[in-house]
Amino acid sequence: MRNDPPPDVDLSPRRLIARKRDGARLTPGEIESFVRDFLDGGVADYQMSAFLMAVFFRGMSGDETAALTRVMVDSGTRLDLSRVPGIKVDKHSTGGVGDKVSIPLAPLVAACGVPVPMISGRGLGHTGGTLDKLEAIPGFRTRLSAEEFTRVLADVGYVMGGQSADLAPADRRMYALRDVTGTVESIPLIVSSILSKKVAEGTNALVMDVKFGRGAFMPDEAEAARLGRELARVGRLLGLDVRVFLTDMDRPLGRKIGNALEIAESIQLLTGGGPADLREITVAFGAAMLVLGGKAADDLEGRRQIEGAITDRSGLERFRRLIEAQEGDPSVLDDPTRLPRAPIVETVMARADGFVLDVDPRILGEAVIDLGGGRRRAEDAIDPAVGFELALNRGDRVSRGQPLATVHAADRAAFVAAESALHEAFRIDSEPPPVRPLIAFHGPGDPPA
Amino acid sequence: MRNDPPPDVDLSPRRLIARKRDGARLTPGEIESFVRDFLDGGVADYQMSAFLMAVFFRGMSGDETAALTRVMVDSGTRLDLSRVPGIKVDKHSTGGVGDKVSIPLAPLVAACGVPVPMISGRGLGHTGGTLDKLEAIPGFRTRLSAEEFTRVLADVGYVMGGQSADLAPADRRMYALRDVTGTVESIPLIVSSILSKKVAEGTNALVMDVKFGRGAFMPDEAEAARLGRELARVGRLLGLDVRVFLTDMDRPLGRKIGNALEIAESIQLLTGGGPADLREITVAFGAAMLVLGGKAADDLEGRRQIEGAITDRSGLERFRRLIEAQEGDPSVLDDPTRLPRAPIVETVMARADGFVLDVDPRILGEAVIDLGGGRRRAEDAIDPAVGFELALNRGDRVSRGQPLATVHAADRAAFVAAESALHEAFRIDSEPPPVRPLIAFHGPGDPPA
Repeated sequence: MRNDPPPDVDLSPRRLIARKRDGARLTPGEIESFVRDFLDGGVADYQMSAFLMAVFFRGMSGDETAALTRVMVDSGTRLDLSRVPGIKVDKHSTGGVGDKVSIPLAPLVAACGVPVPMISGRGLGHTGGTLDKLEAIPGFRTRLSAEEFTRVLADVGYVMGGQSADLAPADRRMYALRDVTGTVESIPLIVSSILSKKVAEGTNALVMDVKFGRGAFMPDEAEAARLGRELARVGRLLGLDVRVFLTDMDRPLGRKIGNALEIAESIQLLTGGGPADLREITVAFGAAMLVLGGKAADDLEGRRQIEGAITDRSGLERFRRLIEAQEGDPSVLDDPTRLPRAPIVETVMARADGFVLDVDPRILGEAVIDLGGGRRRAEDAIDPAVGFELALNRGDRVSRGQPLATVHAADRAAFVAAESALHEAFRIDSEPPPVRPLIAFHGPGDPPA
Repeated sequence: MRNDPPPDVDLSPRRLIARKRDGARLTPGEIESFVRDFLDGGVADYQMSAFLMAVFFRGMSGDETAALTRVMVDSGTRLDLSRVPGIKVDKHSTGGVGDKVSIPLAPLVAACGVPVPMISGRGLGHTGGTLDKLEAIPGFRTRLSAEEFTRVLADVGYVMGGQSADLAPADRRMYALRDVTGTVESIPLIVSSILSKKVAEGTNALVMDVKFGRGAFMPDEAEAARLGRELARVGRLLGLDVRVFLTDMDRPLGRKIGNALEIAESIQLLTGGGPADLREITVAFGAAMLVLGGKAADDLEGRRQIEGAITDRSGLERFRRLIEAQEGDPSVLDDPTRLPRAPIVETVMARADGFVLDVDPRILGEAVIDLGGGRRRAEDAIDPAVGFELALNRGDRVSRGQPLATVHAADRAAFVAAESALHEAFRIDSEPPPVRPLIAFHGPGDPPA
């Protein structure tokens, strides 16, 4: 009965909110009317926020979430990528500390022949944002028109831009409300927000990196798995082929945290170096994207191709072409010291012998904000130069007096605070921590319940 | 841990909403800041509505509800009734169909020496409002200044007014939001809304009539009992002596429904007549009010006094003095035909023999709105003359062709619709329905869990 309101059901906002509050499943038509009325002013902000809180408690079915996503997509323009041949594949991460994976990944996948139309976000809170990292490259422009976005994708094989105002504007308005009303942490709302932008950008398939652990948006692994399953399920309802990875964000990813530093680490990776964890994730995601894009029969073949694009530097060359196409200075690829540099670059030493039992990514993420490299509020300016280069990560052996990390800071006071944060983040013990896989779930298939 | 946030807790609205959403108990200081910021504009309507929805799901402790009530009281002026000697006792009902109890009750209690400062509301939806009923008396004025309110109370021994703009304005603003965001049906929010007005009006004690059944705001008896317990508990935290009754609103109360008709029935009661159910409730509540007011040792003694005030017409005389003091025409007491009369007054006959198995109060309440005697929206005008006089109620024996009820309507079309509603509301069967007490719980003490 609950799923089938009578045909004369009162669609007034108050009734619809009360129905969701009482656990009813709403019809696609009801959800569409409600969101359209919100955009037109017939549903007030205070009604939408009450509705969002009811959704927080009651959840949404896959069909409801798909309907919400569709009306968000239809609220703006949907990019037409038909002039770019091939299956378009994007990657999206729920965000983490040191997560610069998109930056080396996209050019590697493009180099293997799969077009990557990537719309990214900015950093907020302890996790960084891909756009901020790219803008550490002098001149690099992330604000692209639809025409520019499609042209760069066609010319370079991939493109990295920000969400323009006419892409899923309903999502933007609803997200702004969620942000100030305690309704961000709702799986159907997260799913619709992510997928609306992906459907609108015109991608055909998506690798979804759902992170868990202290450095992640959603620390609990079971909750992250639930989000992953919903993303896959609703994505399919929307015609999007989604492959989900669950990855460990209970330690920093890679060794460099901070915008320019993460560009430098991405360049390392594209030239055959860089830390093993970053390479492991990049290759795994790249392989999955090649399979989704029809360029590899299975993950193993995909891995070989991605590793080949590292070895032959075709990924690096794609990155160079992207930087040129988006008006950045490509000389940073040959000389990373041309990236912004902080006035203070100083190494902090370990105070004990033993093993690195833990590196708390949340503390480091917050410390980067304190250094000026991240935002507490959307309007904050950021300093691209600051951050950390870790000499060690979880599980490494350490001796007293050995370098723990190098701090890049704007001034002495900021350095002192960062030094203290480092000592707080690193826990050193006589025994090594148990080994934990970086990729907790890689499919194929969806994360189990 | 949850009950004791650290002293440096972030009181920003978003954090407070999220804490309530996650089931935390808020401190009185947090609740006070949040509501004060709402009144000052620092908390937006959309944040308050999200908070209210979180309260709907998470509830509030007695201390939280008391804190919310206090800040609502403190948002406006609190009447000073100290110049009126004695313990002031009010009665409040959650509302029902045909519930005119306040109108005969207050003068009877006043006649027995207990001052009754009564602030009432208007009807909305299927339940009527005391103010609308009183305004069926030509000239009767319910909009009183604080000075007038206190003067009438001092002179007459009771007073019946509306909520002025400076009485608990926070409640008015929050209620307006609740009304359009599906957050009316929350026990702590109902409790704080009711009690804030009672504390602000300056009463010392309160008889609370919590109704259940189809004609009530809260149909479920267990839910009504829960509301009653919370009203008593939070009332006590606020220094208000509350006695709770649970009464059956699964049938109309009395025989007349409609504003002028209910004044006529109140006059019948005050002259020794009127239906038994209305008299039963009025005498029981009056007795309880005399006990709370220190004028009767127990309910039995209270009943005798109230019955005496009916017999000797001292209650009727108080009502006359009130009407005079509030500028109404007291001649309606001697000649109720001077009350507004509808052009069509026509009797509807029973179509079957047997017993009245059921009279659905909700259908009759809605039918009164359709006749023009109630409001669907706060801005609707009402016709005081229209309504129903029931010839029969639940349990009565009936013969085909015998009068069922008399309809008072403004025109023929309205009469025809009301006639059909009457036939729908009355169910006639060969067996009488089981007898159910009108007063399901009368105390002393609080309703059991």
